[in-house]
Amino acid sequence: MNIDFINPFLQSMSNVIATMASIESVQGEVSLKLDDVAHGDVTGLIGMVGEKTKGSLAISFKKEVILDITSRMLGETITEINDDVLDCVGEITNMVTGGAKNLLAEKGFDFDLATPVVINGESHDVVHKFKGNKITIPFSTEYGDFFVEICFEDIK
Amino acid sequence: MNIDFINPFLQSMSNVIATMASIESVQGEVSLKLDDVAHGDVTGLIGMVGEKTKGSLAISFKKEVILDITSRMLGETITEINDDVLDCVGEITNMVTGGAKNLLAEKGFDFDLATPVVINGESHDVVHKFKGNKITIPFSTEYGDFFVEICFEDIK
Repeated sequence: MNIDFINPFLQSMSNVIATMASIESVQGEVSLKLDDVAHGDVTGLIGMVGEKTKGSLAISFKKEVILDITSRMLGETITEINDDVLDCVGEITNMVTGGAKNLLAEKGFDFDLATPVVINGESHDVVHKFKGNKITIPFSTEYGDFFVEICFEDIK
Repeated sequence: MNIDFINPFLQSMSNVIATMASIESVQGEVSLKLDDVAHGDVTGLIGMVGEKTKGSLAISFKKEVILDITSRMLGETITEINDDVLDCVGEITNMVTGGAKNLLAEKGFDFDLATPVVINGESHDVVHKFKGNKITIPFSTEYGDFFVEICFEDIK
């Protein structure tokens, strides 16, 4: 997978967090690993289907960081994972993938999005089952880290 | 959502478990609920994208039932959630959705599949974020229950 293909997701991720929650996130190293597993407390997942490929995107948050992001998005202090938090994770997942989709469409690479699913459960693992390379990117914020994982099957 | 649209998934689910693991599963009542949440220990998820709709499917297993299914699929006794179990859940998710896709294509309803994602974590919740009706169907087996959730946004 080409880095030109990944950058729109990273750009969209930073934009969404900055715009929606006024949080500065620092992107870590992009790594290509087959065996890595995101260990989140809350994870947003979405399927992507294009003519030339298909895949999935996950954004996995530790509890403290998603409580901070949701509190800032809603303008009130949220101290527990509740429906508002799950809604925010679904919305962030949609917005990040939708933003990347638009940027990639400008480059002639088109795909459609499924509907997001949010997983809530202390320290769950997210395992993408597909034939291809998985790209993992950590983001750090003042309140903790979150992880973006992008998987596309090898482009036909 | 029309029951004709759901039956192919149920038929495919029973077929896959019967064929791959020689387990008889008894389908429970199909219910349409907006607020229900599947509480699984291992869940297979897949996104679905068609011209007229999009959605997601989840199959959520309690530990004991997926250990039994995997043991039967592999012909050896598996006592802990390991990579083999996660592989089986990914494979079951793909096969169930692929089977339903073929049955629905015969009826002129076409959709494409994203790649499956498997979640592993004790008692996680699966929350589908979408505009439409969610269909939940419990299946019971000798070793416990599992849940199929089918979500499609309202057909355009």
